[in-house]
Amino acid sequence: MTHDEQPGADGRSGGDGQSSADGRSGADGPDGDRLDEHCPDVGLLAPGRAGSAAEAATSDTAFLQAMLDAEAALTRAQAALGLAPARAADAVTEAARAERFDVRGLAVRGRSGGNPVIPLAADLAAAVPADCAPYVHRGATSQDILDTAAMLVADRTLALTCAELERTAQALAALAARHRDTPMPGRTLTQHAVPTTFGLKAAGWRALTLDARDRLRAVRAVLPVQLGGAAGTLAAFDAYAAAADRLTDGPTDGPVGPRLAAAYARELGLAEPVLPWHTLRTPVADLAGALAFATGALGKAAADVLVLSRTETGEVSEGAGGGSSAMPHKANPVRATLIAASARRAPGLAATLYASVAAEDERPAGAWHAEWEPLRDLLRLAGGAAQDAAELATGLCVHPERMRAHLGLTGGLIVSERLSAALTDRVGRARAKELVTDAAAKARTGDGSLAEALAAEPALRGLDLEALTDPARYTGAAAALTDRALKRS
Amino acid sequence: MTHDEQPGADGRSGGDGQSSADGRSGADGPDGDRLDEHCPDVGLLAPGRAGSAAEAATSDTAFLQAMLDAEAALTRAQAALGLAPARAADAVTEAARAERFDVRGLAVRGRSGGNPVIPLAADLAAAVPADCAPYVHRGATSQDILDTAAMLVADRTLALTCAELERTAQALAALAARHRDTPMPGRTLTQHAVPTTFGLKAAGWRALTLDARDRLRAVRAVLPVQLGGAAGTLAAFDAYAAAADRLTDGPTDGPVGPRLAAAYARELGLAEPVLPWHTLRTPVADLAGALAFATGALGKAAADVLVLSRTETGEVSEGAGGGSSAMPHKANPVRATLIAASARRAPGLAATLYASVAAEDERPAGAWHAEWEPLRDLLRLAGGAAQDAAELATGLCVHPERMRAHLGLTGGLIVSERLSAALTDRVGRARAKELVTDAAAKARTGDGSLAEALAAEPALRGLDLEALTDPARYTGAAAALTDRALKRS
Amino acid sequence: MTHDEQPGADGRSGGDGQSSADGRSGADGPDGDRLDEHCPDVGLLAPGRAGSAAEAATSDTAFLQAMLDAEAALTRAQAALGLAPARAADAVTEAARAERFDVRGLAVRGRSGGNPVIPLAADLAAAVPADCAPYVHRGATSQDILDTAAMLVADRTLALTCAELERTAQALAALAARHRDTPMPGRTLTQHAVPTTFGLKAAGWRALTLDARDRLRAVRAVLPVQLGGAAGTLAAFDAYAAAADRLTDGPTDGPVGPRLAAAYARELGLAEPVLPWHTLRTPVADLAGALAFATGALGKAAADVLVLSRTETGEVSEGAGGGSSAMPHKANPVRATLIAASARRAPGLAATLYASVAAEDERPAGAWHAEWEPLRDLLRLAGGAAQDAAELATGLCVHPERMRAHLGLTGGLIVSERLSAALTDRVGRARAKELVTDAAAKARTGDGSLAEALAAEPALRGLDLEALTDPARYTGAAAALTDRALKRS
Amino acid sequence: MTHDEQPGADGRSGGDGQSSADGRSGADGPDGDRLDEHCPDVGLLAPGRAGSAAEAATSDTAFLQAMLDAEAALTRAQAALGLAPARAADAVTEAARAERFDVRGLAVRGRSGGNPVIPLAADLAAAVPADCAPYVHRGATSQDILDTAAMLVADRTLALTCAELERTAQALAALAARHRDTPMPGRTLTQHAVPTTFGLKAAGWRALTLDARDRLRAVRAVLPVQLGGAAGTLAAFDAYAAAADRLTDGPTDGPVGPRLAAAYARELGLAEPVLPWHTLRTPVADLAGALAFATGALGKAAADVLVLSRTETGEVSEGAGGGSSAMPHKANPVRATLIAASARRAPGLAATLYASVAAEDERPAGAWHAEWEPLRDLLRLAGGAAQDAAELATGLCVHPERMRAHLGLTGGLIVSERLSAALTDRVGRARAKELVTDAAAKARTGDGSLAEALAAEPALRGLDLEALTDPARYTGAAAALTDRALKRS
Repeated sequence: MTHDEQPGADGRSGGDGQSSADGRSGADGPDGDRLDEHCPDVGLLAPGRAGSAAEAATSDTAFLQAMLDAEAALTRAQAALGLAPARAADAVTEAARAERFDVRGLAVRGRSGGNPVIPLAADLAAAVPADCAPYVHRGATSQDILDTAAMLVADRTLALTCAELERTAQALAALAARHRDTPMPGRTLTQHAVPTTFGLKAAGWRALTLDARDRLRAVRAVLPVQLGGAAGTLAAFDAYAAAADRLTDGPTDGPVGPRLAAAYARELGLAEPVLPWHTLRTPVADLAGALAFATGALGKAAADVLVLSRTETGEVSEGAGGGSSAMPHKANPVRATLIAASARRAPGLAATLYASVAAEDERPAGAWHAEWEPLRDLLRLAGGAAQDAAELATGLCVHPERMRAHLGLTGGLIVSERLSAALTDRVGRARAKELVTDAAAKARTGDGSLAEALAAEPALRGLDLEALTDPARYTGAAAALTDRALKRS
Repeated sequence: MTHDEQPGADGRSGGDGQSSADGRSGADGPDGDRLDEHCPDVGLLAPGRAGSAAEAATSDTAFLQAMLDAEAALTRAQAALGLAPARAADAVTEAARAERFDVRGLAVRGRSGGNPVIPLAADLAAAVPADCAPYVHRGATSQDILDTAAMLVADRTLALTCAELERTAQALAALAARHRDTPMPGRTLTQHAVPTTFGLKAAGWRALTLDARDRLRAVRAVLPVQLGGAAGTLAAFDAYAAAADRLTDGPTDGPVGPRLAAAYARELGLAEPVLPWHTLRTPVADLAGALAFATGALGKAAADVLVLSRTETGEVSEGAGGGSSAMPHKANPVRATLIAASARRAPGLAATLYASVAAEDERPAGAWHAEWEPLRDLLRLAGGAAQDAAELATGLCVHPERMRAHLGLTGGLIVSERLSAALTDRVGRARAKELVTDAAAKARTGDGSLAEALAAEPALRGLDLEALTDPARYTGAAAALTDRALKRS
Repeated sequence: MTHDEQPGADGRSGGDGQSSADGRSGADGPDGDRLDEHCPDVGLLAPGRAGSAAEAATSDTAFLQAMLDAEAALTRAQAALGLAPARAADAVTEAARAERFDVRGLAVRGRSGGNPVIPLAADLAAAVPADCAPYVHRGATSQDILDTAAMLVADRTLALTCAELERTAQALAALAARHRDTPMPGRTLTQHAVPTTFGLKAAGWRALTLDARDRLRAVRAVLPVQLGGAAGTLAAFDAYAAAADRLTDGPTDGPVGPRLAAAYARELGLAEPVLPWHTLRTPVADLAGALAFATGALGKAAADVLVLSRTETGEVSEGAGGGSSAMPHKANPVRATLIAASARRAPGLAATLYASVAAEDERPAGAWHAEWEPLRDLLRLAGGAAQDAAELATGLCVHPERMRAHLGLTGGLIVSERLSAALTDRVGRARAKELVTDAAAKARTGDGSLAEALAAEPALRGLDLEALTDPARYTGAAAALTDRALKRS
Repeated sequence: MTHDEQPGADGRSGGDGQSSADGRSGADGPDGDRLDEHCPDVGLLAPGRAGSAAEAATSDTAFLQAMLDAEAALTRAQAALGLAPARAADAVTEAARAERFDVRGLAVRGRSGGNPVIPLAADLAAAVPADCAPYVHRGATSQDILDTAAMLVADRTLALTCAELERTAQALAALAARHRDTPMPGRTLTQHAVPTTFGLKAAGWRALTLDARDRLRAVRAVLPVQLGGAAGTLAAFDAYAAAADRLTDGPTDGPVGPRLAAAYARELGLAEPVLPWHTLRTPVADLAGALAFATGALGKAAADVLVLSRTETGEVSEGAGGGSSAMPHKANPVRATLIAASARRAPGLAATLYASVAAEDERPAGAWHAEWEPLRDLLRLAGGAAQDAAELATGLCVHPERMRAHLGLTGGLIVSERLSAALTDRVGRARAKELVTDAAAKARTGDGSLAEALAAEPALRGLDLEALTDPARYTGAAAALTDRALKRS
């Protein structure tokens, strides 16, 4: 246990004079009840994640439990190496249950030292038999516990998020397969360009979803425990070992810290880092990037759903839009809206985490503290968006007839690229352009189809004008690309 | 009341089939209790604001109360114009108390429509007598209520924050006055440059603090209510007025909406906007800028405290550092650390809010939803930082003797700028440089003072070398600038 | 002149051994020519500002000229106070012309000391007669010159940008007035809600444009010079004054620095700051906020133009879209696109500037250097966007017939809010809803108008159903709000 | 060639009426010369990259050359598949040299269509024989060329950056090995905590550097070409093939587009994407994350150098600091400062790129355009920082004697963690704390060493107090961790 957060021998917090009882009363006093009533946030401003699994997995209680899991694993790891009695490991493991702790009290008491682990270590020490108390948090620094807890929370939340991304990808695969050959206008800079298919669009959404899943999985697979002690040298563990001469894991070949870190990682199912990473923040930066990307990737599908479900377009609609029986025409694309909102927020949060990589000293004054809430927010945004995306993809209503109708909106000019290619060989580029423009004008004023208008030109005889002007037959490699993309698993 | 969130005549929510009772049970069911236990956030990851007044003023409950305040004010304003019976205004006002509502249930039910006002309007309608229910939320859209609530919360929180900034500025004024003539090394790019005074430094911190206060005050003075109805035309109010023919505020000169907005603003003590601002987000952007600046401004003082309290420097220390009786040498600058952390986070949040200014249509799909949590976070970061800054400034220990000692660290070279000016006239620039360099080398190796070393040079006879080499007498306009800055109130 | 950047007596740079001639050759040597060819950026990746006045006003040459203006003003101010001979002021003013300096050479030589003012001061000193050289940059620090130059550049660029905003606002006023009564669908969360008018929309864009102009103007009006000397105490000026005993501006009442700063500000037409602001970055933060807001404000109009000009909607089109004679249907909204791109970039840049407020010491190691390019980028993004917005607003084609047609897209349900209000009094809320829904279904299947369908209901006799179902007559306070908004100048 | 940017048959740009000659004159006319003089940016505000290899590799000219490389490769790939004559491939390849094009003219002409590829394709077509002109840019869209060019530029710049990171890592490995056992204070929250070694610190910097290299390498290895045609279906290539019936690559098994993309990728040495990625921006997001991380990773070392080289600390100094012979005490850590500045800027730029992932349609109106400059800026920031880091690491002066001296600053309390562990077994926790505190007080007031003070306590007899109080012997696993970290290659 480092000096920073050393609970007293009595299992209470040390130097700052805050006993656990005092601490708990931090939220009491004259305004205590009122504070307790008023301060919890329960997602009122966060419909994108209220009630989601990711929210529960990242709550203050979930973080508290993860901190307790880290503390218990550390004591067990010390016991495994002979640095602590088995009885202490059992006692700490038994006590390390979040519901026994006053999470609000810990939050408020965390103010004085700047993090919640200091009062938590004191309370946990107070919750075990007196002879076990010295083995609580022994040799660790607050950051060892908080970082490890953050990785545990990330691990648990990413499991949920990746599952939702899988669910999303499956629904999108079904959409892509079903609409492999459903033509629709391809749009660039808001304007019809050439035809595409809804299958290719859905396949693209799926590709991004799988990219997101792969990146989150890759980061998740190597989330490390944190163990460095006061300044990253793991020195306290040797000091305690030397004082007690209790090592049991064989000849004391070198310092005990690295062996302890390995045992600690095994206890928690996380990776063992090569170095303590108090100020080597690769894991947090990797999470930031993967989560911002995942949220943005889902945001791409949401952006498309939003433009395609506009009243004038109506090519897709959410299965369960935010409808109103009083307003039959109003079915808001709520899932897409909430995903879009999350995609707007994630980049700024990731930026804060990337900025915290440049942290001074062995443990920094601010850069680390600035990570906690943004990391949680990112986990929630991505997790909530993934759940919404799964619902969105599963329930999305596609309206091929609207897509087909829109292909005609430009009087056939959506295939002018193809016509230009076909006619240029016959009549030269300039005349081809003229013919297409004139015919389109006729088509739009109702004087027959584009094909009919072109048929009047002798030079075009022999061309299959019906085929050449059919947008549904000008989708290029869309189907082939869709097939190829769907092979990915 | 717009179609989007129209509760049924029975006071329950309309088209989406969620009765208020159903809705409340949203968090119940098999996992309900567990969710209710697990999801509240109580500041465990936020020592920078846990327990602060700004936290309480921005809690979900505080937002809920502000939404209810907005609803009640809207009904009262309608009553004042004859659009609703006084009895309805009384009933809504009476019912509009946050403690009567299930905030978690509202949060979870908010998912389906994408915001919490929809279920809230239903629950509020259910909480008043049946004949009053139609006057709940009548003619308004969710955004009218949520935006107005956000402005109310901002108004209330900024009052607290400005008070803390005042307290900070007063403490800094005292520090600046006390240390008006306390010399210390001026540092640039981490290196000693020329002397300055701690008074000037504190005066600078104060100037930034007052700049922050002034910007927050200016924004606060014009925070507007939001009232536009479904799409910003205020049309529903005329529709209801026409249907009921109940207007009492004189000849119906033009539409009633603008008069209603004025009455609504009066009820709430907020400003009346020229236009509904559903997608004219100047107020939110102004808040973003002022709050990011305020947090950064406090962050400047924190950055200085952090470098000045480094163990090697020790020119200041926090009055109540995160000390430990086990580690007498370890008094962490915790307040400065937490302020610094907030200053790292605010810019990214402000960026999200600035990005939301570019919002499409009459009410956007995502840009608005993306504002809610970042705006609250900014209010909390600035509010928490202001409280910490007040504590920091009030308790800061200044160690003039360390400052004085450090002025000698460069063997007198900290005044080389002045010596160079003085000697150049006598011996030319090149020789002056040579003399200073040689004398400094002697001074640093202990062979007497810089003045003594220079005195050996005949060409410098007559110069008051003691004065010229005294860093404490080379502080330029520091005192005059401090005096000038302290005149500002 | 501070030690940091003191050119030698010979007018060449001091300690770092880089004479101005050497320095200029920094870009030469084996790769010199190639570098000079390859490195200039001329806007290839920046169509949003290439060729704009804001680009020219913020070029490297413009910054160089502003630095030279600052240097010359400083020498003139010293001459005005008797700290330098008039001849030196004349010589420096004469020499301070950007075209005489090698801007690329300065850039490359700036690497060694970390800023371009160090080599610039050396080159400027070399460009004046030897007896004038000592008065170049005398007493100043690099940051005095670079910050002042940045304020000059901001001042000059904002003049252009505000003029473009004025031009934009005028064009928008004309649009709003012309379309005061042009009905169109109001859209929320992408769906038709209730009718609005194009006039109100344009009035809203104008309001944001004026908000932007007002904020930029307010910031521009107080842009300060920077003058602090090596560490913000202005001490060197007293040192030089004492050495030379040359003060002529009356009894030496206190330090000369503040008087010099006032004279310097007068020379440049900028404000005199209360304190040197090397690390009190209010002016830069204020610029950041105002510029990010301005870009976002224009981005709102761009976002609307983008959705309204989608092929399916076509309610507006850019006067000079990125059209193609080969593709009559493809008229890309290029101006709106480029504005939208700028609005996406500005917030991240502003975030960097806000983060730099928290800067340590008297002059920081990094926070200041991080400001230069983002500030210029912001000036360019806002300036380019303003120019594009003026073109966009001036040339925008509005298609009222499309707007009118779209009002019918929902079979009249766009007025269901009004119908519901009107019918509820007659038949109760539940029956009213039923009637509206049924009638709308009939209207959409072509069996007559909504009014006709409703007319079949006896209970509605006497209601002016034509009026009640006419979207063009359900625009609420839109016209009144437009009138009110247009009164602002 | 798509309609968007189709040059006319005469090889000049089509519908927009801008011939290449006209276009070039865009920057001429009355103000032309002045613009050409004034607008180039040459790095004056960017000392962090002025003159660096990364700057040259990312200049406008470098981007122009990469666009030309992409165009030429596309024509060659078409020739390889029989879609174009070999003569055209040769002619385009021959013409595709940046120095033949007017880059400023392209920039200015890019305004009208919103990107520089449109005028470039026209100019390139004009630069080849008339019969070859139709094969220039044939079937491609602007984004195909610009995205591919960006990937080429990234590929080329990352090669340079990774080499600098290697160089940095090697220098840091040498530092770590040399100082494997050099003790120094470990600092947390700015205060001395327990001892560490400089070797471990340097090993940590190296670990981050290698993390950065690995991430950049991984991204670089899969940078894809872009080829989708007008809307991502590759349809134009089939249209041209059908019109000309020229395919030579075997039986026409499916659409030609995917085969062409593969050939195009082979020509350029980039990866072949599964799908066109016009709005599937994984490659750009991956670059954003890796570059922001790399810049931050170097920023960590810079942050440490900045605090360690503060005048009071002086444990390291830059080999070639921004020194001044006039100010022997002032050796600014310029390289670290510039790296720190870059680390402050990268996150905001990466945020913009992550935000662009959520892009609507087949090609978006703004999200894509917002990427170009931020991506280049990130490449430059990371590349410039890597070069500076290599210089910094190579030249860093380490001052072990200062480190050793500082270990004594707390009167031995830096080892209180160890003493507490050792003494608690003897005298209990409470008495141990008391003894340590008292002894430290004596040590600091000069009454002998900490060991001597403790030796007075009978209960401690037999303990090797000299060893227990020697900070240099309390570095825990620092050496072992350093060794382990250095094994990574």
